[in-house]
Amino acid sequence: MPFASIAKRLPTLDDIVVAHAALRQRRPLVQCLSNVVSANFMANVLLAAGASPAMVDNPEEAADFARVADAVLVNLGTPTSAQVEAMRMAVAAAVDAGRPWVLDPIGAGGLAWRGGIAAELLRLGPAVVRGNASEIIGLAGQGEGAPGFDSSDDPAAAVPAAVELLRHSLAVSASGAVDHLLGWVGDEFGSAVPRMLRIAGGSALLPRVTASGCALGALVAAYAAVSENAFIALAAAHVHFAVAAEAAERGSRGPGSFVPAFIDALDALDAEQIRRHGQLLPVLASI
Amino acid sequence: MPFASIAKRLPTLDDIVVAHAALRQRRPLVQCLSNVVSANFMANVLLAAGASPAMVDNPEEAADFARVADAVLVNLGTPTSAQVEAMRMAVAAAVDAGRPWVLDPIGAGGLAWRGGIAAELLRLGPAVVRGNASEIIGLAGQGEGAPGFDSSDDPAAAVPAAVELLRHSLAVSASGAVDHLLGWVGDEFGSAVPRMLRIAGGSALLPRVTASGCALGALVAAYAAVSENAFIALAAAHVHFAVAAEAAERGSRGPGSFVPAFIDALDALDAEQIRRHGQLLPVLASI
Amino acid sequence: MPFASIAKRLPTLDDIVVAHAALRQRRPLVQCLSNVVSANFMANVLLAAGASPAMVDNPEEAADFARVADAVLVNLGTPTSAQVEAMRMAVAAAVDAGRPWVLDPIGAGGLAWRGGIAAELLRLGPAVVRGNASEIIGLAGQGEGAPGFDSSDDPAAAVPAAVELLRHSLAVSASGAVDHLLGWVGDEFGSAVPRMLRIAGGSALLPRVTASGCALGALVAAYAAVSENAFIALAAAHVHFAVAAEAAERGSRGPGSFVPAFIDALDALDAEQIRRHGQLLPVLASI
Repeated sequence: MPFASIAKRLPTLDDIVVAHAALRQRRPLVQCLSNVVSANFMANVLLAAGASPAMVDNPEEAADFARVADAVLVNLGTPTSAQVEAMRMAVAAAVDAGRPWVLDPIGAGGLAWRGGIAAELLRLGPAVVRGNASEIIGLAGQGEGAPGFDSSDDPAAAVPAAVELLRHSLAVSASGAVDHLLGWVGDEFGSAVPRMLRIAGGSALLPRVTASGCALGALVAAYAAVSENAFIALAAAHVHFAVAAEAAERGSRGPGSFVPAFIDALDALDAEQIRRHGQLLPVLASI
Repeated sequence: MPFASIAKRLPTLDDIVVAHAALRQRRPLVQCLSNVVSANFMANVLLAAGASPAMVDNPEEAADFARVADAVLVNLGTPTSAQVEAMRMAVAAAVDAGRPWVLDPIGAGGLAWRGGIAAELLRLGPAVVRGNASEIIGLAGQGEGAPGFDSSDDPAAAVPAAVELLRHSLAVSASGAVDHLLGWVGDEFGSAVPRMLRIAGGSALLPRVTASGCALGALVAAYAAVSENAFIALAAAHVHFAVAAEAAERGSRGPGSFVPAFIDALDALDAEQIRRHGQLLPVLASI
Repeated sequence: MPFASIAKRLPTLDDIVVAHAALRQRRPLVQCLSNVVSANFMANVLLAAGASPAMVDNPEEAADFARVADAVLVNLGTPTSAQVEAMRMAVAAAVDAGRPWVLDPIGAGGLAWRGGIAAELLRLGPAVVRGNASEIIGLAGQGEGAPGFDSSDDPAAAVPAAVELLRHSLAVSASGAVDHLLGWVGDEFGSAVPRMLRIAGGSALLPRVTASGCALGALVAAYAAVSENAFIALAAAHVHFAVAAEAAERGSRGPGSFVPAFIDALDALDAEQIRRHGQLLPVLASI
């Protein structure tokens, strides 16, 4: 369980380059329990980035598959009762088999039913939680949440909620114009403290493409399967997205032409681009 | 309930420019109970046009969400029994909360089960019904309907059926090469009569993209949330689509490259384009 | 039931040109019982190639629709228990009505539940089985199957399994870098023997687009509705895909821009392109 180790320091661009090379080489199998809006885009994002997607989300197969997958993504975008049953089974199997799993609590906070499911799943210990600011705040029970699925909060406002969620996971992100990532980092005295890393860059067109957040959650799961720890996985996925989005915007005329350009850019990303365009903004103090 | 007011005259390009400005400014939250084919495209169309999509279609959440959404779309593309239950609940909640809702009776007429559901929902009073000619004819019980989902009838042939559907709604459209829109308009004696507006333009590539009709229905719902009345909302959505499709065709080599160009054009649409390229063909007599 | 006749010889480019003209002229209605990942892309592929898609996959409607559809596709990508029930009903109705149906056993071999369903459906006699090598091997019970959905086997390794599947169907393909197609061909003594045709060309970008195999299976069903026999239908769909993919790759910068270019190319394909770029590699001996 490499993902289970505590980070020794905040993730660096060197760590991300290593994680990216591992993704390309190992091509992890990512089981996605996802939604009807994102399924196709998410699979194409994973294929382009370098992973192998498998949308296995029925109760008859979800647990068996979680035992052979390299990582599991649970996304609450358009849950059915059968999918929720499958999510519970897949998470239990992933935990049992020592596989990392990622929770993407789409719409949590704004909707009571899925909010309860998200809170229940959270207690099972995801390696990573990824959401927008409103979802992170809602899942932590610190606000009412937005009625819609687009965040009405700034990621900076979600930091206290993210700290709260670290009681159940190794790393948490509130994605947005500047992504706010939090994770456990070992300090010099041998204990771990929450630390924060912000990631700038990206493109204003990205949130104008539906399911871009969902696809980012799936990429976090892919990186969790190949990274030294969960914090690096989370940072690598966000940087992969941000650098590709920046490149894609240059070749786009709007949110429509941005989509194929973004998939091309996810595919074309290399170590040099990560080093030149990755914008890590470490927060030196503990949170 | 602005959408519930009866139109005082046939919609004009001025009305549509006002509705478009309101869409961009208010960014209405549109709950879509839709289908697996259209979900992703529909969400991207709404985002590009200026609305906020939310695909909440399970029985556990549909009613709660309909109370906070600005408008609700019910689309019968690939219904499951759970979705149908959610549709009934969402419509009841929308009616109760005074929210406009739009019925898109995909495949009604050709398939008995969904035809019965569409007829049942129709009696609950949608603000607008949008379909292709075969669906409008089928829903009105005036024909056998087409076996497939592509219309085999000319929109002009659907006018008597559309008049029949006006018994249950404020406006009805039969989309096609020339869209036929019907709605209630107040006459000089203080009572309302059915009137017709045809909309030309668009692109022959649009019906060659799957779910383009579905996405148009969702855009009607978005405009219903911000327009002065249902007839304007219906006209505004059709003009937004037609003008954007015409612009997109110029940058396309076929139905594949048309898709990103169309999303870009939906996003880029402005008042000047509406005024220059919107082709309203009012029918002066009552129907 | 033209598709039910045994081929008199291996399919030729002339046969494929005839089948393609029939597809364009007759625009067959193809019922797809498919999955959340592929539904939109599959429908756009069918529309571009020249067919009329209808994703009718609920138990309430599947059988009725199979009686009016020109062909039925059963794809096990993300099955729910309700969809499986619908699949059984649609296949029974298609068999009863003499309609060709195609089995695409996505993930069979790697997952026990769907593997059992695929084996059960196989015994009902699909006109064609299409899969990647791992799925064909898994369905024939000749291997463990791959854990994921990307084939880990070469199509050549699936030939014995494909021969085994010919006990239940008229033609079988293992798609891959070089597609391996097998089907019954009448010999000079009046009995039928399994023969093989390989198809080269295509693009390495095609398997990097999710659901491209699923969409190919749907196109096989479309051709089965209009071709002289199942072997020609299978070959025509693979050649249509391969020639279009080759053309699309020339206009692409990666797997993202490949998608719209591929849809454009499926639409633009004509007889001359088939004759100039179709690469049939007949195997002269019986298998």
